[in-house]
Amino acid sequence: MSTTWIDEVNWDERGLVTAIAQDAQSGRVLMVAWMNREALAQTATSGHAVYYSRSRQRLWRKGEESGHTQRVLDIRLDCDGDVILLRVEQIGGIACHTGRSSCLYRRLESLGGEERSWSVVDPVLKDPATMYPSKKNSPSDPS
Amino acid sequence: MSTTWIDEVNWDERGLVTAIAQDAQSGRVLMVAWMNREALAQTATSGHAVYYSRSRQRLWRKGEESGHTQRVLDIRLDCDGDVILLRVEQIGGIACHTGRSSCLYRRLESLGGEERSWSVVDPVLKDPATMYPSKKNSPSDPS
Repeated sequence: MSTTWIDEVNWDERGLVTAIAQDAQSGRVLMVAWMNREALAQTATSGHAVYYSRSRQRLWRKGEESGHTQRVLDIRLDCDGDVILLRVEQIGGIACHTGRSSCLYRRLESLGGEERSWSVVDPVLKDPATMYPSKKNSPSDPS
Repeated sequence: MSTTWIDEVNWDERGLVTAIAQDAQSGRVLMVAWMNREALAQTATSGHAVYYSRSRQRLWRKGEESGHTQRVLDIRLDCDGDVILLRVEQIGGIACHTGRSSCLYRRLESLGGEERSWSVVDPVLKDPATMYPSKKNSPSDPS
């Protein structure tokens, strides 16, 4: 693969960068994952999001099991070169392995108050058991 | 400080989590930084974004020098508990230490094509030299 543009990314000591997926239409931040060189190269070539799973230590084509792929419309890099932002079309409208539209579904209540707690503010749109029929339990990584 | 809600965050081996700031009005992802427990606690209490600078190894009140503070409207936590999302009002409309509205100002051109490169697509709104008068060079972290 051509490496020039990939070499401008500031890969960390593990060869990874933070990758954020944002819904291009709603603007909602959907999820945060990791990419290695190959994941970024495949994402750019295929036009669909490919991440690197640290727990499984392999490339992870988003939606490979759930069908909830991400069509990539735009790839951005930050000033330090260590964050990638994907603007995507989220197929199926579900990015999270819990069956929710976004992984960012817990909101801190009583911001500025004394008693605080995280509150789940987004509904489950699809039962994870039907999203990942091959697994008894939900995977630790969204897929 | 009350620790219950902070203990639900999945702090990494360094005691940090990834923190994303998103403009609440435009939906634009502005920057990505790190938080430790104290940074998150101060952010929740003060209603203004406080991060942890790894390079300076200290808390970093966003805008402490530039004046480009972030008023926090909403704090979210992801499914794995290791990503914080702040929806903010970006004071001054500049989040990046390069003087741009967002740190995500480089876009990959020719997505899907053969020849690719990063292209700067956002203008500098303010000369960094006037944002950080005490420094000869721009800081490595935005502030």
